[in-house]
Amino acid sequence: MTQRFLAAGANPELINLAGGLPAPQTYPVPEIAAIAKQVIETHPVETLGYGPIEGLPSLRRALAQRLSSRALRLTPENILVTTSGMQGLDLVGKVLLEEGGIVAGQFPTYLGALDAWRPRRPAFRNLVLESPEFDPVAAMAGAQFTYTVPNFSNPSGRLVDMALRERLVDAAQSTGVWLVEDDPYGGLHYDRSPLPRLIDLSAERHGGPNGLGGPNGYGGPVIYTGTLSKAVAPGLRIGWVVAAPEMIRALTTAKQGSDMCTSGVTQHIALAALENGLIERVQPVIVELYRKRRDALCLAMKAHLSAWFDWEVPVGGMFVWAVARDPSLDTERLFQLALEAGVCIAPSSVFDASGRNRSAMRLNFTLNPPERLDEGVRRLAEATRHLCEDKA
Amino acid sequence: MTQRFLAAGANPELINLAGGLPAPQTYPVPEIAAIAKQVIETHPVETLGYGPIEGLPSLRRALAQRLSSRALRLTPENILVTTSGMQGLDLVGKVLLEEGGIVAGQFPTYLGALDAWRPRRPAFRNLVLESPEFDPVAAMAGAQFTYTVPNFSNPSGRLVDMALRERLVDAAQSTGVWLVEDDPYGGLHYDRSPLPRLIDLSAERHGGPNGLGGPNGYGGPVIYTGTLSKAVAPGLRIGWVVAAPEMIRALTTAKQGSDMCTSGVTQHIALAALENGLIERVQPVIVELYRKRRDALCLAMKAHLSAWFDWEVPVGGMFVWAVARDPSLDTERLFQLALEAGVCIAPSSVFDASGRNRSAMRLNFTLNPPERLDEGVRRLAEATRHLCEDKA
Repeated sequence: MTQRFLAAGANPELINLAGGLPAPQTYPVPEIAAIAKQVIETHPVETLGYGPIEGLPSLRRALAQRLSSRALRLTPENILVTTSGMQGLDLVGKVLLEEGGIVAGQFPTYLGALDAWRPRRPAFRNLVLESPEFDPVAAMAGAQFTYTVPNFSNPSGRLVDMALRERLVDAAQSTGVWLVEDDPYGGLHYDRSPLPRLIDLSAERHGGPNGLGGPNGYGGPVIYTGTLSKAVAPGLRIGWVVAAPEMIRALTTAKQGSDMCTSGVTQHIALAALENGLIERVQPVIVELYRKRRDALCLAMKAHLSAWFDWEVPVGGMFVWAVARDPSLDTERLFQLALEAGVCIAPSSVFDASGRNRSAMRLNFTLNPPERLDEGVRRLAEATRHLCEDKA
Repeated sequence: MTQRFLAAGANPELINLAGGLPAPQTYPVPEIAAIAKQVIETHPVETLGYGPIEGLPSLRRALAQRLSSRALRLTPENILVTTSGMQGLDLVGKVLLEEGGIVAGQFPTYLGALDAWRPRRPAFRNLVLESPEFDPVAAMAGAQFTYTVPNFSNPSGRLVDMALRERLVDAAQSTGVWLVEDDPYGGLHYDRSPLPRLIDLSAERHGGPNGLGGPNGYGGPVIYTGTLSKAVAPGLRIGWVVAAPEMIRALTTAKQGSDMCTSGVTQHIALAALENGLIERVQPVIVELYRKRRDALCLAMKAHLSAWFDWEVPVGGMFVWAVARDPSLDTERLFQLALEAGVCIAPSSVFDASGRNRSAMRLNFTLNPPERLDEGVRRLAEATRHLCEDKA
């Protein structure tokens, strides 16, 4: 399905609301071009040669510093540089997942992550975090790890609230089950300031001067994965894992057999972007642009789709998750009709490993300008009307 | 062990004969720096955005053209761009290897490749290709795939001869077992012209106008993996897999869950290097430099090590494989004594999944200039003398 989305992105006639692509005009093109030339000239052996599997020491130091917080004191031994955020998830599976093991995962979820683990044929235990009966300890028990996207979960766009964050972290601590905090969208906040990360809460609640947040770095059960893809540019394929040093060592061994080391060229571009303020300059521009696009999409949806769908306006991220009022409205069929009408959506079936959830859809608002979003929603409304007329 | 080798490379006092590192002065630094800037400016969305999982269409086309031969007519559907040659091997394992399956592999072998597959707990069947009793059909039967490095196998430096190449290809065809041809050193020939690749022979012997080498591209059992790491610079982390389109599609699905796509920045640098003649300009310089270094290493070995070791002068690649005359000479212990004497070697145990082979070593000649090679061999001779005196 991801392949179909990526292919749809290449057709200029089609309005692509399906993917999770950034707005290309936010890429800092001249800056990165200049940085690329400069870092290769200045660090020829580090950029063009083999480097340490764990990542360049300078980049690990910079990430440890940037990702530390009041409660969380990271050392470079807490950091693994990865070739994209996706690689972090792949490596977690290689290290933790035995054939047929259980992955407890926030549901609905990003199937790309599940794809990384599928070769081991895991059993997926769906965690419906927003259910009033959700019990983190019972949910995690016996799992090889728990997978969460607390900030603007893909596809639901939902922010996991503070109380639930604390319960998740406490449950990971008490059960000893690794808790993967996947945070690609953490920088994309439109209406309010960020909540603490699970890894911050883990250090704060279970650390101490010589404990999880002590001078020896973080040692708790949260495995945090991040990426530059949303903050700067996905084409760098630079991500990171933050975890206890023994987990970083195990992931490093797995990375050796995956790609040996991440490109020194893109690592040095990332380092420069972290150190010269590029991220701080780009981030507010991205947030401002995406906030306007989110508002434009939701306005168009209110005007054209509210007869058939309900949704919450997301406070961050890249997506709106729309649920059909009529549970028999089949978004897998709508996907086909919408394609014919010239718009591509992501039907809910692609976020459900069982394929049973067929009455919701995910719409992206970051790629297209407001007028294209409006036109896309009009086309989608037309397709929905056809679908419902066919059914009637 | 790879981590120890990479770490040893960072100590300037130590002479590193252990790794498989290129000579950094061969990196075309100003050219790549200029290309990097230019491709980002010219192709901002392709370099900095997400791209197709299979690789940029332009790079796949260029690779299909470059890797075609008289008998082998490749199409872009035969090509997958990978994040390093290592990723190609990892993806092959993800697609072909079931838990506990058999990998038939040239022996001794590059354990990095085995590391990629070890999480699936495969059974390794050692193929001693140079044995007079070697029977390719029996050796491949029941394996999930066969792994070979026909050009200057790591660690042995041995070139698989023409007759054996033909027998391997015929056996893959008749048994239907996939045959992985790993070719990182294929461009490093010092004394003679290259032999045809296994994939060439597969198309030539079993193809036809509408067959394996026909207009629809290659469709046979060889999976060929290559890399720019030895021809241009490892820091780009650009490799490729050439295989039948159905295998490329399966590997593409696996790549999606590994890193989604390879960096557009490094793919475009690779494309420019392929198209503007950079590789053709760099290659003869590398070959000339490495030939001299091979000769320097072998000369020093003859002067200082011939009392204890036998070796063949390799006709290509990066390594000399030296076998102790006394099978009780333990190169694992020599490794330790050599470190103390200021030289790092690769003992044979690291090329044997069973760890039983302890009386040979691999010496690299590409990284160090002749005088350092000579000094390294002198230190190694001193360490060997100590080892043998201790024993006596």
